[in-house]
Amino acid sequence: MNLLITGGTGFIGKHLVKELSSNHQLHLLVRPNTGSTIPKGVKTIVFDDNIAELHQYILENEIEGVFHLATLFVAQHQAEQIKNMLLSNIYLGTAILEATQHTAVKWVINTGTYWQHFHSEDEIYCPTSLYAASKQAFIDMAAYYTQVDDIKFVTLKLSDSFGDGDTRPKLFTVLKEAIVSGKQLQMSPGEQVLDILHVKDIVSGFVHLMKLLNENKALGSDYILAAKQRFTLREVVAIFEKVSGKKINVVWGGRPYRDREIMQPWNKGIMLPEWEAKLSLEEGINLYLSKTEQR
Amino acid sequence: MNLLITGGTGFIGKHLVKELSSNHQLHLLVRPNTGSTIPKGVKTIVFDDNIAELHQYILENEIEGVFHLATLFVAQHQAEQIKNMLLSNIYLGTAILEATQHTAVKWVINTGTYWQHFHSEDEIYCPTSLYAASKQAFIDMAAYYTQVDDIKFVTLKLSDSFGDGDTRPKLFTVLKEAIVSGKQLQMSPGEQVLDILHVKDIVSGFVHLMKLLNENKALGSDYILAAKQRFTLREVVAIFEKVSGKKINVVWGGRPYRDREIMQPWNKGIMLPEWEAKLSLEEGINLYLSKTEQR
Repeated sequence: MNLLITGGTGFIGKHLVKELSSNHQLHLLVRPNTGSTIPKGVKTIVFDDNIAELHQYILENEIEGVFHLATLFVAQHQAEQIKNMLLSNIYLGTAILEATQHTAVKWVINTGTYWQHFHSEDEIYCPTSLYAASKQAFIDMAAYYTQVDDIKFVTLKLSDSFGDGDTRPKLFTVLKEAIVSGKQLQMSPGEQVLDILHVKDIVSGFVHLMKLLNENKALGSDYILAAKQRFTLREVVAIFEKVSGKKINVVWGGRPYRDREIMQPWNKGIMLPEWEAKLSLEEGINLYLSKTEQR
Repeated sequence: MNLLITGGTGFIGKHLVKELSSNHQLHLLVRPNTGSTIPKGVKTIVFDDNIAELHQYILENEIEGVFHLATLFVAQHQAEQIKNMLLSNIYLGTAILEATQHTAVKWVINTGTYWQHFHSEDEIYCPTSLYAASKQAFIDMAAYYTQVDDIKFVTLKLSDSFGDGDTRPKLFTVLKEAIVSGKQLQMSPGEQVLDILHVKDIVSGFVHLMKLLNENKALGSDYILAAKQRFTLREVVAIFEKVSGKKINVVWGGRPYRDREIMQPWNKGIMLPEWEAKLSLEEGINLYLSKTEQR
């Protein structure tokens, strides 16, 4: 298949590209001046706001499916980030949907977040952050295209993720650095529960959803990928210590919980059908540490 | 009160400004290079994407309420309009909400559209157009601010409108021109039902909602303004002919219904409490024709 991928040079995107590139012709949508190297055999289309040109590219290359992973993630936004966040998280996806009209594209897999649901027991939307709000706003834009076009649009809502190649300053990156440096880590009291997936499992979820869509399975509009088991932050750190065989110098309560910290992740999401995470957290961390040590 | 108004130089905005300017200090948020003349006594703030500056203005001028009427209306969009539509309909409002944080602003009155609901009997969102989708998307962005801030955000959903000063190529403008020119008007079969309000009634709705908000009345998140009575397009034209005393040369069925024409406007909206339209369609058209003849 000819598949278009956005965010294909990002953390999850890179892993997805690696997984899919042997069996499919991939086309990475990149923004002008992207510095990233593109794997061999993978084509690129530079999107410079020219929707007609993108439409033409999709037609000529007989694209049949789109993975939309591009995102501008901002945990706690600053005012001056809003415009770029909306352009990345709402406009880009809308432009792509516009460009898929009257083409061979049958489905678009979108990436959402558990953070669209601040309250763990509510099914409805309630954003944790402006970032999460922008994810919901794009889904609203997409509703127009699924109304007027015979296109399937399914959102995979992700929670926390980890794996090699993650350059974001996230938990596991910080823990690994703390092992090396031996420095004290000031952390929150650590009672928040995490639903955290290794990127290998996330990629398997995306690929599985593609399979379901290609088989024309009846699907809802959004699903979650969930870990085998949830742990508190304290438990996660304990497992990390166990797997690595190193003690991490954490000061629990050394900083407060952040504003709108999620203590219990969303409980009302529907798991992607016929899919489950393969790796336990211990196995995931083991894989993470062995992969990153090889570098 | 010090009130901030966006879209204050547009059709409805102009009328609202006229209505409010005698009792309140108005501040019109305008974009750079606006060509519009600003009424005497009304202040302006040029918003050039500097949210910090807008925040400072809101603080210094002790703004307490915001009327957000600015919109980029596009009935059937072209690809190249999408970016500006999203910047106008999602980004601008988001930037304003950001700027109202930690200020004296107690409420924001937002402008929505019946077109957010394609199916007349459904309560849920289903966009008629990409324009309507952008309206919904902004409401989702606003949900973040009402979560983190003690601000009231109420959307008034409007259907069709008319009145003097409406320069948009809309039904009544077209009908009036047809009277003057005597030209044939190619119209759809004309069986679609319209819910159409004179701008005087729309302004009274906005002002009434402000009153309810200032009185701290318990309010929901969105209301509609609805006409006294609905008419088919054919009936509207007949009333127009009756009031004007002129025959209009309409070719019914001379063009097809447009894509996603709404045959029956949304029936599930909740009317703004303690408010009703004052003018019948006949009275509204009468006022419209007398006002526009004065020009």
